[in-house]
Amino acid sequence: MFANIFTNNKASAYSSETIDILRLIRSENVGPKTFLNLIKFFGSAAKALENAQDFSLKGGRSKPIKIYSKDAAIKELQALEKNKSYLITYKDPSYSKLLLQIADFPPVLSYKGDISLLNHNKTIAIVGARNSSINGKSFAAKISKDLVKAGYITTSGLARGVDTAVHSNSLGHTIAVIAGGIDHIYPPENKELYNEIAENGLLLAELPIGSKPLGQNFPQRNRIISGLSLATVVVEAGLKSGSLITANFALEQNREVFAVPGFPVDPRCIGSNQLIKNGAHLLESVDDIIANIVPKDRIQKSLEEQVGCFSNIGFDMRNSDDIRVTDKNRAAVIELLSASEVAFEAIVQQSKLELPVLYAILLELELAGKVTRTAGNKISLIY
Amino acid sequence: MFANIFTNNKASAYSSETIDILRLIRSENVGPKTFLNLIKFFGSAAKALENAQDFSLKGGRSKPIKIYSKDAAIKELQALEKNKSYLITYKDPSYSKLLLQIADFPPVLSYKGDISLLNHNKTIAIVGARNSSINGKSFAAKISKDLVKAGYITTSGLARGVDTAVHSNSLGHTIAVIAGGIDHIYPPENKELYNEIAENGLLLAELPIGSKPLGQNFPQRNRIISGLSLATVVVEAGLKSGSLITANFALEQNREVFAVPGFPVDPRCIGSNQLIKNGAHLLESVDDIIANIVPKDRIQKSLEEQVGCFSNIGFDMRNSDDIRVTDKNRAAVIELLSASEVAFEAIVQQSKLELPVLYAILLELELAGKVTRTAGNKISLIY
Repeated sequence: MFANIFTNNKASAYSSETIDILRLIRSENVGPKTFLNLIKFFGSAAKALENAQDFSLKGGRSKPIKIYSKDAAIKELQALEKNKSYLITYKDPSYSKLLLQIADFPPVLSYKGDISLLNHNKTIAIVGARNSSINGKSFAAKISKDLVKAGYITTSGLARGVDTAVHSNSLGHTIAVIAGGIDHIYPPENKELYNEIAENGLLLAELPIGSKPLGQNFPQRNRIISGLSLATVVVEAGLKSGSLITANFALEQNREVFAVPGFPVDPRCIGSNQLIKNGAHLLESVDDIIANIVPKDRIQKSLEEQVGCFSNIGFDMRNSDDIRVTDKNRAAVIELLSASEVAFEAIVQQSKLELPVLYAILLELELAGKVTRTAGNKISLIY
Repeated sequence: MFANIFTNNKASAYSSETIDILRLIRSENVGPKTFLNLIKFFGSAAKALENAQDFSLKGGRSKPIKIYSKDAAIKELQALEKNKSYLITYKDPSYSKLLLQIADFPPVLSYKGDISLLNHNKTIAIVGARNSSINGKSFAAKISKDLVKAGYITTSGLARGVDTAVHSNSLGHTIAVIAGGIDHIYPPENKELYNEIAENGLLLAELPIGSKPLGQNFPQRNRIISGLSLATVVVEAGLKSGSLITANFALEQNREVFAVPGFPVDPRCIGSNQLIKNGAHLLESVDDIIANIVPKDRIQKSLEEQVGCFSNIGFDMRNSDDIRVTDKNRAAVIELLSASEVAFEAIVQQSKLELPVLYAILLELELAGKVTRTAGNKISLIY
């Protein structure tokens, strides 16, 4: 279908910035949120890499965090290449503008297939039960076909049931986000579908090539499915299903949620009916989606607005060398924290520290694995 | 179960007021709305009967309207008695307070069975497809049983499918409103259910005993099903179904509507899903009903508030003999009317007539069959 613009990339062809970004996100205690705070603080992955170990020591670790070596990064890129897969970072123009707007976007993604789909942005997630009914699958198939006809692309998770119906009925216009590394085909019976999407669609993975997914990786993956998408459609979903997790991510990410209703006797409808009760759009046909989403509104923010430096604090964070933090400052901040979440604003107010100093201390603690940040920039101490 | 308090009534035992009310509503050109306007204007059915023919002539008829004779009324009451059925008027304390609140409540109802159910008021209508699915029927059965357990009674239309499931699963606590006369059993296969409800529930009919229903009588009947009820539940309903008509009546009557969702591939769900899209509560279990209705709020209005004389116009309508209407006044009002609906307030404003005079003229025209009133007190001329 489309020519793959990265097909001829060699590992050696990646820029040093890409390699730095890859090294930083794969370093110890650096998740997507800490990554973003590091970039905002230091201005670049290179400078963050230079300082991360020192910060982790200042934050209270006895040994510095492990930094992902340049060698390891090159090896990862070579392994990808061998698998006809490639790496893209959040700074690439092909990276999804929609995904970039979520608080914990993945700084790097491995991919296989047609990368031009990633920044298509008229993307709709469709998720549902693995044990979906015949009707559930045929409905998912119809919605997928109708979305493609209307100029949209689909995204889903390559699972059994609804996911499979979605991908196979929108080939050429579908993105599968997998929970393990880009080479980890799950479920095994979807090997052929995986290959078809590689040829005629796009496969994405957040974990390094070669990784097998742990349980916690599935919800992490789901935030990408919803984050890539203007809206998430739930076709059949039980009460404690992964599909509901995806729908909740979509809501947190300020995206629309559509749910297909079902007769209440079927347990596969309990989740979707609950979503409708809680305000999701009732979905009967693709017209409901088109009538309720406005793609343009969603993709206008600039990269700088989304992941620029901390702004409006009267200090250019890129001059971070000038920030002086004392042990007394650190002790004062730790004193304010506890196992219960505290809003960042409350810490600002009560610590009475300069903002750059406070940012530095919190970064140190993050890198030392002493604090965790949750949605809404709330901070708690890890004991 | 309950002793029938009217069981020993003879036709001769009905009050003269009951007979007057029966005669008035059965008279030519007197429907429920005109009946109510006549009562508000003349203060009693007796006085309305005295004046109705004269008013119809003033309104432009060449022959006066036919008044239902006292003989005919007595015969109707005797026929009811023979069928172990009885008559109740809106002035009886056993009449439903909820039904009395709708704009076009039936001034008389024939009934058979336990009249104490009529003013129970914790009444929920459950309606749905005649060709309902097995799941639809079993869901209707479950909701009906659960409502009875929670102290509610059900009402429905004795039709095939959902209606049948409702009545037969809430026997002793169910009201069936039939579209023909009280003796008209439809569909014929529900004869046994009809008899069970007569023994153990309540049957109601607006049409005179012996009447076979015309097509238009079914929607008229549906307004009573919803009007008797705090809420209407729609179990399965196609797009142009009687159940949707009932739901729309419920909305007009300011009652709650609940709809059971269904997977969109089933045409029996299109109507109920549409209702949810338009704001009906999604119903999964009886808990949804209990959580969303407040019975007490609905049954507090007094009879006087609901069907008292025209109020707050500085004139006691019971002195209607004092109202002088000229031919010029009549011509002026007719001049203002047309086939398109006009709001009553607009006629008040533009005619510049005293309100009692205007009420009289409109009543004359109603009785003459020259005008019709629709919801919201809008008036149009019949050509």
